[in-house]
Amino acid sequence: MKVGFIGFGEVSYRLSNILLHGKVEVFTSLEGRSDKTKKLAYSSEVVILDTFKEVAKESDILVSANSPNSALAIAIKYGSLTDGLFLDLNNVSSNTTEKIANFLSEDHFIDAALMGGVKSDKLNLFVSGKLSYRIAELIGKLPASEDYKINVKIVSDKIGDVSKLKMLRSYYTKGVSALLIETFETAKSLGLDEDLWRVLSLTEGENFEKYSKSRIINSYKSSKRKYEEVEEILEFLDELNIDDSEDFDDRIMMCIATKNKFEYLKDKN
Amino acid sequence: MKVGFIGFGEVSYRLSNILLHGKVEVFTSLEGRSDKTKKLAYSSEVVILDTFKEVAKESDILVSANSPNSALAIAIKYGSLTDGLFLDLNNVSSNTTEKIANFLSEDHFIDAALMGGVKSDKLNLFVSGKLSYRIAELIGKLPASEDYKINVKIVSDKIGDVSKLKMLRSYYTKGVSALLIETFETAKSLGLDEDLWRVLSLTEGENFEKYSKSRIINSYKSSKRKYEEVEEILEFLDELNIDDSEDFDDRIMMCIATKNKFEYLKDKN
Repeated sequence: MKVGFIGFGEVSYRLSNILLHGKVEVFTSLEGRSDKTKKLAYSSEVVILDTFKEVAKESDILVSANSPNSALAIAIKYGSLTDGLFLDLNNVSSNTTEKIANFLSEDHFIDAALMGGVKSDKLNLFVSGKLSYRIAELIGKLPASEDYKINVKIVSDKIGDVSKLKMLRSYYTKGVSALLIETFETAKSLGLDEDLWRVLSLTEGENFEKYSKSRIINSYKSSKRKYEEVEEILEFLDELNIDDSEDFDDRIMMCIATKNKFEYLKDKN
Repeated sequence: MKVGFIGFGEVSYRLSNILLHGKVEVFTSLEGRSDKTKKLAYSSEVVILDTFKEVAKESDILVSANSPNSALAIAIKYGSLTDGLFLDLNNVSSNTTEKIANFLSEDHFIDAALMGGVKSDKLNLFVSGKLSYRIAELIGKLPASEDYKINVKIVSDKIGDVSKLKMLRSYYTKGVSALLIETFETAKSLGLDEDLWRVLSLTEGENFEKYSKSRIINSYKSSKRKYEEVEEILEFLDELNIDDSEDFDDRIMMCIATKNKFEYLKDKN
C-alpha cells in the first residue's frame, strides 16, 4: 500500500509514523513548504518526491492534512489526479466538505477526522462516505501492534457525517471552554479558584484540572479563531432549521452565548 | 465526641455511618419525620432521642442536613440550643448562609458542604468559618481507616466561602448540563448522538458518558428546580457587581444563557 501526504505537519507526521512502522510506503513532497515542515519531514522516514502531483499519482490513499483555508483548493487540484482514495483530514466545516464533494466523486472522496489526542502513536480515525469501508480494510491489513495503531471507526456511508461530528464536538468543547473561563474568572475574583479546582476535580475526573487549564489558556490565546469557528457552527445550525421553528434560538442558545463570549474575549484582547 | 443530626436523609446516614465506625456517639430524633427517614434511621446504629431539642443539647457537633427551605428555621431554633458547633450542610445559597450567620455567632456556626459523591463511606467535607479548624481536629481524632473516611478541607476562616464555592460549582456543572442537552439534542436530530458520545469520550474521560447521561436525565427531570438554582446564582453574581461595570453581563453571559435554557426546558415540560 502507498499513502501520500499533502501537507506534513504534526498530524501527517504521526500518521506516517504508524504507517511506516506497518511497512507502508509513505510519500510527501516539500514543494513550496516551510522550513519547519521540511525539518519534520526529514526527521521521518517518509519518501520525498519532487512534486505533489507525483505524490497524488503514486498514492492508493492521498491524505490532505493542511490548513482549513487550503483544503478546497488542494482537493480540486490533487484529488482529481489520484486513482486512489482522497482523505480530507483538514479541520473544515461541513460546508467546505460539501463543496469538496461537489468536485470529487464518492468513489474517491472520504470525509475523515482524527478524534481524541494526536500526539501519540495510537490514533482514532473516523471516516464517512461510500468507500470508508475501504479505509478500514486497508488499515486493517497493517501488522497488529499495540504501540502503533490506527483505530478506524466508520460513522456512515454519507459524506458530511464526520464533518458534522467534528462540529458537534466543537459545539460542546468550545461551550465548556467559555464556561470555564467565566466560572474561574468569578472564582478568582472571590479568591476561591484553587478551591474550585479541587472541588470540581472530585466529580469531573482526575485530568479535569490539567485539561481545563489548557483549554482556558488556548481560549484566551485564540479567541478570534474560536469565535470564527463558533460562527461557522451557528451557520451550520441555521441551515438545519429547515422548518423555521419559532423556538430555534432557544434550542441553540448555549451556542449563541458561546459565540458572544468569544466575541467579547477577542474584542477585549 | 457526640454528634447530632437534624434531618436523617442520605447525607446524614452516610456521615453517621463513618462516625459510628469511629466509635463516635451519634444522635438524631424522629420527631415529625417521614416514614422513609424513620426507616433509614432504624437501619443504622444511631441513637434516637425523643426531641431535636435534646439532640441539640447533647451534641458537640450539631449537623443540620435537611432541605434548603428549612435551613434557616432550623438554625434559628436549634443552633442557639447547642453549646457545640453548628454545621450547616443544607444546599443553601450564600444569601441564606449570611442570614444564618446573623443569628448564630461565629463561635458556633460553620459553613460546610460535602463535595464530590455522597454515596460512599469516603466523604469530602469542606468547611469555612473561624472555628472550622475545630472540625478538622475532631474528625482528625477518629481512628484511621481507609474504608471509612471523612477528608476535611478548611477553605478559609470566613463564613460564606464554602457557600460561594457550592455556587461556583453549580455555576459550572449546570452550564455543562445545559450544554450537554443542547449538543445532544442537535446530534440526535442528525442521527449522530451515539458517535458523539464515542468522540467526546476520547477526550473527556472514561466516565464522561455515564455521568453526562445522568446529568441530562436530571436536568430534564428537575428543570424547574435547576432554573431556580441558577436564578439564585445570578442574584449572587449581581451582588458582586459592586462597581456596576458596563461589561458585567458579558462577563456572566454563559450563566445567563444557562438560566434561559432551564427556563425554556421547564416551560416546555
